[in-house]
Amino acid sequence: MSALTMMSPSEAREMIRNNQWVKPTSGVSNGFIQANLAVLPKDLAFEFLLFCQRNPKSCPIIDVTEPGSGIASLAAPNGDIKTDIPKYRVYRNGELVEEKTDVSDLWDENMVGFLIGCSFTFEEALIKNGIPIRHNEENCNVPMYKTNIQSVKAGRFEGPMVVSMRPMTEKDAIRAVQVTSRFPSVHGAPVHIGNSESIGIKNINEPDFGDRVTIKEGEVPVFWACGVTPQAVAMQVKPEIMITHAPGHMFITDLKNEKFSVL
Amino acid sequence: MSALTMMSPSEAREMIRNNQWVKPTSGVSNGFIQANLAVLPKDLAFEFLLFCQRNPKSCPIIDVTEPGSGIASLAAPNGDIKTDIPKYRVYRNGELVEEKTDVSDLWDENMVGFLIGCSFTFEEALIKNGIPIRHNEENCNVPMYKTNIQSVKAGRFEGPMVVSMRPMTEKDAIRAVQVTSRFPSVHGAPVHIGNSESIGIKNINEPDFGDRVTIKEGEVPVFWACGVTPQAVAMQVKPEIMITHAPGHMFITDLKNEKFSVL
Repeated sequence: MSALTMMSPSEAREMIRNNQWVKPTSGVSNGFIQANLAVLPKDLAFEFLLFCQRNPKSCPIIDVTEPGSGIASLAAPNGDIKTDIPKYRVYRNGELVEEKTDVSDLWDENMVGFLIGCSFTFEEALIKNGIPIRHNEENCNVPMYKTNIQSVKAGRFEGPMVVSMRPMTEKDAIRAVQVTSRFPSVHGAPVHIGNSESIGIKNINEPDFGDRVTIKEGEVPVFWACGVTPQAVAMQVKPEIMITHAPGHMFITDLKNEKFSVL
Repeated sequence: MSALTMMSPSEAREMIRNNQWVKPTSGVSNGFIQANLAVLPKDLAFEFLLFCQRNPKSCPIIDVTEPGSGIASLAAPNGDIKTDIPKYRVYRNGELVEEKTDVSDLWDENMVGFLIGCSFTFEEALIKNGIPIRHNEENCNVPMYKTNIQSVKAGRFEGPMVVSMRPMTEKDAIRAVQVTSRFPSVHGAPVHIGNSESIGIKNINEPDFGDRVTIKEGEVPVFWACGVTPQAVAMQVKPEIMITHAPGHMFITDLKNEKFSVL
């Protein structure tokens, strides 16, 4: 393992804060939860939190900041979500307007930050159980698809569930259900196994986000609810301002992956 | 089983709505989730939802209404939380001012209803596993205690965790951990087993709420986070208005207990 993998979350966040690490965080501080970020104005916060509560598989909340604060008091009390992500994206009225390495200047008393679980957590559990992760083997991003599974609406927030896909043998698929069921608060069990058309995916080789991966003879595609869902849904509301992490550039928390296992 | 036990949730809610059932709901519509109610004004809703999200063991959210609506669209789409609870309590500035069987006249566009999971769900699972429930045997209410375990604060909401206690053999206690771990969204695994003083309970025979139960020779007390916690915490904020169910008079949902099991 590299020094980076072994770095404590606190050390990693400090490097990131000082712009000494402006790249994806995959593999950084191994064993600790990395989170997606969505920052919204306070007047949308209740509805968005309710949307996440109603759609826990695609929107597993790890922590929420108090309005105006950059501190995720549960996930990283000595971190700051305004500075400790390698790269941010800023959207105005639903349009991407800039990428930044620090969003302190955009912060005001109305900003509420949502940290949302990511699949790195359960992928670590799959790997520990000897289930290979194809997009890691092929050194690309996980394939993601829009589905015909509608999220449960909350106020202005609604839209289809986005899923990520990992191909594996049928035997591994059963074990994958068991392993990921232990993590209900970070996506949990798969939402679908097998025929992709029945959840509205036309062509498994043309993902809507991320990259195509090889599905080998004898393998089935296994689909999990994806943390891209809440960002995609929030974007459709076209908030005056919304800040997210840049893809793959996550917030590293002090929380151990295993802490999120119920068994 | 009585006809009552077998009644569908929809039928039970209709009886309750027509004031044909103004008493506790224990045993009604067996197998379906019954929920605690807390209704708060919209300006407190985000903070309260965040408090629940941060304290999932004591505040397991089953559903939240849209502001001004009485419909819990996930838990009981054809029900109405304004009328379908046998008895409500109305608090103004933290003081109990009246009990009613219908709170439609108190509703306005600012009211947000929170349905919070109750221990009936995991008790059913314990019973199915052959673990006797002492307060059922002794035909009284479960004993509940304030502890020195602090809830995680959210905005104005903070306070100690309230726990419920069930005595059982040490062998059953291990099985109880397994069984209730399957239900992370309705209190989940115990928060403590054994020595009650270490969680700040001075006298196990003097519960703060509910009734004292017998602890037999060779039994250990097993403690679960209790849904009384969020009500107690909300009360301390002294909201202008807050509506709750009267103790034991719960909202009967269409959701099967088993649906809340992750395994």
